[in-house]
Amino acid sequence: MSTDKENFVKEITNIEEDFAKWYTDIVLKAELADYTDTKGCIAIKPYGYAIWENIQKYADEKFKKSGVKNTYFPVLIPESLLSKEKDHIEGFAPEVAWVTIGGEEKLDERLCIRPTSETIISTLYSKWLNSWRDLPFVYNQWCNVIRWEKETRPFLRSREFLWQEGHTIHETAEEAKQRTLQMLDIYEEVIEELLAIPVLKGRKTEKEKFAGAEATYTIETLMHDGRAIQAGTSHYFGQNFSKPFNIKFQNREGKEEYAYQTSWGISTRLIGAVIMAHGDNRGLKLPPRVAPIQAVIVPVAMQKEGVKEKAEELYQKLSENYRMELDVRDNYTPGYKFNDWEMRGVPVRIELGPRDIENNVCVAVRRDTGEKITINLNEIGTKLQEILDNIQQNMYEECKAIRKKRTNIAYNMDEFVKYIDENQGYIKTMWCGNVKCENKIKELTGAHSRCIPFEQEKLGNTCVCCGKEAKHMVVWGRQY
Amino acid sequence: MSTDKENFVKEITNIEEDFAKWYTDIVLKAELADYTDTKGCIAIKPYGYAIWENIQKYADEKFKKSGVKNTYFPVLIPESLLSKEKDHIEGFAPEVAWVTIGGEEKLDERLCIRPTSETIISTLYSKWLNSWRDLPFVYNQWCNVIRWEKETRPFLRSREFLWQEGHTIHETAEEAKQRTLQMLDIYEEVIEELLAIPVLKGRKTEKEKFAGAEATYTIETLMHDGRAIQAGTSHYFGQNFSKPFNIKFQNREGKEEYAYQTSWGISTRLIGAVIMAHGDNRGLKLPPRVAPIQAVIVPVAMQKEGVKEKAEELYQKLSENYRMELDVRDNYTPGYKFNDWEMRGVPVRIELGPRDIENNVCVAVRRDTGEKITINLNEIGTKLQEILDNIQQNMYEECKAIRKKRTNIAYNMDEFVKYIDENQGYIKTMWCGNVKCENKIKELTGAHSRCIPFEQEKLGNTCVCCGKEAKHMVVWGRQY
Repeated sequence: MSTDKENFVKEITNIEEDFAKWYTDIVLKAELADYTDTKGCIAIKPYGYAIWENIQKYADEKFKKSGVKNTYFPVLIPESLLSKEKDHIEGFAPEVAWVTIGGEEKLDERLCIRPTSETIISTLYSKWLNSWRDLPFVYNQWCNVIRWEKETRPFLRSREFLWQEGHTIHETAEEAKQRTLQMLDIYEEVIEELLAIPVLKGRKTEKEKFAGAEATYTIETLMHDGRAIQAGTSHYFGQNFSKPFNIKFQNREGKEEYAYQTSWGISTRLIGAVIMAHGDNRGLKLPPRVAPIQAVIVPVAMQKEGVKEKAEELYQKLSENYRMELDVRDNYTPGYKFNDWEMRGVPVRIELGPRDIENNVCVAVRRDTGEKITINLNEIGTKLQEILDNIQQNMYEECKAIRKKRTNIAYNMDEFVKYIDENQGYIKTMWCGNVKCENKIKELTGAHSRCIPFEQEKLGNTCVCCGKEAKHMVVWGRQY
Repeated sequence: MSTDKENFVKEITNIEEDFAKWYTDIVLKAELADYTDTKGCIAIKPYGYAIWENIQKYADEKFKKSGVKNTYFPVLIPESLLSKEKDHIEGFAPEVAWVTIGGEEKLDERLCIRPTSETIISTLYSKWLNSWRDLPFVYNQWCNVIRWEKETRPFLRSREFLWQEGHTIHETAEEAKQRTLQMLDIYEEVIEELLAIPVLKGRKTEKEKFAGAEATYTIETLMHDGRAIQAGTSHYFGQNFSKPFNIKFQNREGKEEYAYQTSWGISTRLIGAVIMAHGDNRGLKLPPRVAPIQAVIVPVAMQKEGVKEKAEELYQKLSENYRMELDVRDNYTPGYKFNDWEMRGVPVRIELGPRDIENNVCVAVRRDTGEKITINLNEIGTKLQEILDNIQQNMYEECKAIRKKRTNIAYNMDEFVKYIDENQGYIKTMWCGNVKCENKIKELTGAHSRCIPFEQEKLGNTCVCCGKEAKHMVVWGRQY
């Protein structure tokens, strides 16, 4: 058994030594995804896709409760549409893939594969909208998008990824702004409750906002190695798209008015965030609520009479309320299986051997703490839920503790550089609001502004970079 | 009210006069989908997409129970991969869209947008498969595909459509064949139980089978106007893809063997089938199990005290168990609303006025028969389910009756031509198995072979076309 363990650890790069390599090892060995012959695009394997389905289900229910309706818009967008909003095309043109031939003929106008769908959706909103009575449109689509990234990394930055993009139009600016923030709140719930990752909420700076938006709001997360991941964004467009796309309605006064618009999205990038926020040297570590397998039963001394049958019986019983797996593979030792399921991040392992059966118990082993708990078989049905709840809570707390440890306040650039080099993580500073300082900080430290947090703190009066009067408290960090 | 009714009828083309136009009217007026600036591609609106979500949910649960796991593979496929299987590329090359530019640079190798994913998935199966112990792979993806059709029609034939494509590999030919038929059975259940459309099951002829398949199995459906729609297909590939793609495994005897493969799919085309199979001159008619709104409450004399409140109360109560809508729009008359919801195919309308409230009743009106049923408000919670079940069953029976009326047996080509011109529908004949006869029948009648039904009947010994010895009973029909 100990040899098995060592082999497993050897197969996975040490998390402290080379985090990037550790990440790739987990993605491949836990069979979440694989590289493909289409450069920069991955195949999401069943175990990885099941995580995405759990995220979708959780988010989609919350969306629908808030009045969101699902739709589907074309994946191909004519160039003339993409170009209608000036900032938008400038932002997206460099990373677009173009279809130039269809059905063996050269197209008159080339079509891009959607990098996002504001433009095509806006043309239809323009067509569908007449009166204030029609409003709001609160539509969403779950779909694939393409962005021609130069450097890719499974889940985190892929030329194709899956996401949801919500697009809404409203009668008033207030209502649209409210929807923008409402969706950010829902994202916060999804990521904190389901993925057990604490989030930082705030507004993006002008430099970091979405191409064409009036304001971009974000939820930021911090990974095990102290780098940040933008986990979801929600944009308020004002009338930036409704004007060029002519999305007009007759308002309550009988006058024509342009609608107020929002968009918001989360993507398969969240799978990357779950891996990087929680994983350790034993492999993947999944929060119970999002784990495709919540508990695995591994029979011990499976050849002994009655063991397999009892394991099967327990599996049937627990499957009624939990996402279960029963490992009766006859070509692996229990020790190998223990390591295998730990590496795959299953929150609880249930061991069941002849002695256990005699005593009418089983042994539950927590993936997060390694704790072994002997449980009466009559009680496992309810106890398991308690253990899963504890793990979920504990993983969230652990993640929060790491974030706290990795958050520093810097009052000048020397401190900024020192803290980020030593500790990575978030750096909190005051900032004058000038993009020149933002650029300079990026140059000196490699850190981007994560956001201007909603919860502002007063850390003095002067910008960390130029020393002039500060406008905001900003959180900075290196990013994936 | 009668004026409203007439207007509604006028807005929708008469179903007997111009079925194609009637169909387009329904798609647009019931707000199922709309045309877009991307030629040949539609936008699926919330009401249409909700139908698709119900189909997905129903099918996906059945898939998973049968051992299917969901995955996701790249939307872009390098040309060299698409070309590996000879029949496959020949079949699909004419209807493929090509990406030639990515990130402002011309690509070294062009990439097609998947018309189907056998090729890209096969390269990964080849990489993932080692031993018989790994088998079977029973994977599926819900995704979009592009086929560059010349003539398009919303849902039925669109350049982009949504579907699921299952791709499996197995240890033996028998197991693969069994899976092919198992999935066809699941499709039958989805279409008969959920969509209330009776299906005809059988094998496609050589001419009509999928490019690269050894055998294609199909479920065929008949529309209101007597034209056929292929509602789903399941393909057995044998080793046709595993050989060029090198999908090999070590078998139980320790020898290398090529895997046996299948694929199967249903698509948003089913939405078109539901419209065309059940609709009438009042508009769309949706089977209760797939209807996004199962019952709509329309308060009558809404301005009277207590009516709106009681309607709201009823809505809350019924929403616990049914997909409900409450129509309290104040700018439409009840009569307008009745017609509006009929046109949108909602199975049951519940009318509630002051007199009803006094008597503690409401009036349920069936969309399929027009029958009005007075129901005690204390009983509506359970009665509604009975009514919905009756409607579901009745719609299936009606559809079956139409199919029966539209099915003819032809013993010679004169009869064939006469029946199909008079009655459209299915023509049953004996056939020699020669593609020349199949082509000739197509030329003379416009009918394609639908399938060689599993349930064979002996209708004589000679081919309907050439008079030579017959091999099979075949069902023919004009198609969408």
